[in-house]
Amino acid sequence: MELLKKRILKDGRIKDNQIIKVDGFLNHQIDINLLNEIGKEFKSLFEGEKITKIITIEASGIAIACFAAMHFNVPVVFAKKSESKNIDGAVYETTVTSFTRGKDYTVILEKRYLTSDDRILIIDDFLATGKAQQGLLDISRQAGATVAGIGIVIEKGFQGGGDKLREAGYNLQSLAIIDSMENYTVKFRE
Amino acid sequence: MELLKKRILKDGRIKDNQIIKVDGFLNHQIDINLLNEIGKEFKSLFEGEKITKIITIEASGIAIACFAAMHFNVPVVFAKKSESKNIDGAVYETTVTSFTRGKDYTVILEKRYLTSDDRILIIDDFLATGKAQQGLLDISRQAGATVAGIGIVIEKGFQGGGDKLREAGYNLQSLAIIDSMENYTVKFRE
Repeated sequence: MELLKKRILKDGRIKDNQIIKVDGFLNHQIDINLLNEIGKEFKSLFEGEKITKIITIEASGIAIACFAAMHFNVPVVFAKKSESKNIDGAVYETTVTSFTRGKDYTVILEKRYLTSDDRILIIDDFLATGKAQQGLLDISRQAGATVAGIGIVIEKGFQGGGDKLREAGYNLQSLAIIDSMENYTVKFRE
Repeated sequence: MELLKKRILKDGRIKDNQIIKVDGFLNHQIDINLLNEIGKEFKSLFEGEKITKIITIEASGIAIACFAAMHFNVPVVFAKKSESKNIDGAVYETTVTSFTRGKDYTVILEKRYLTSDDRILIIDDFLATGKAQQGLLDISRQAGATVAGIGIVIEKGFQGGGDKLREAGYNLQSLAIIDSMENYTVKFRE
């Protein structure tokens, strides 16, 4: 997605050749016009997939999932980090190792909001090693839901998680794939 | 807001006369059409306030803030819970006591995304004792930003946080104010 790639080059800030900060427009401050275009792009990429729900993990996936959901006209369900005591009822539960947070955490999703009738689109801001996405796939398996697609804004191709998901047969579409950030220069996959 | 009140009566689930679960449409599963109407309502309530940014706290404020921001055509900035090591630069920092989580946590917001030029609208899903809002007000004070308004979806009037903010002179608008949930019956403030 050219608009996104241009914005990454303009406003992304690279740390340690591994981390790119895009918090000026994607996951701390949110440029709603860009996110609307991103939502539209996901709609065109997964058109015809008969998506019934968009699934993401709190917190930084929520805004993107909402803008995508507007274009699909379906609900969003976001998996929650589990420290809250304000969850009741039966939940799906899985463990995710966070690359940026450097620790494991439990995420939960109430069973009533995801069932075997659902054809879901998993949406997230970043895909690196793919741990967060594996967590959502695990929850989807528990629910018996059909994963119709995975939509990622920025894939860090050099960390390999995306290619593993493609090899496993998932319809993964990333709007920008960064294959290298060496010498503080972003190289996108063609 | 009548549409919201009807939805609360239809789908809200009361626990212990204190907590109302609205996770079927507001803060776990998200009804995007309802949230769009909520965003529109906030726009009409704060029309003319020359809002430059919408501020919220992760996670459940994000979706609501995004839909409001669409109608104002301004960016959203969400304050983050601070365990992430993926934050750099100077940050505003404050401590919030969570009613639902039963503990204190630190929230941060990068200084570059909120300045004394901003006229902000603070948006959140719930207002109970007002701790989360006090945290965002503290961050706004640190930034020297002008708080042009506070927009809440559901205020639990019987916990008093909203009336304290009104007494302090804030332009607080809650789309539904629940004054009592005794005997599992929601009573809205007129």
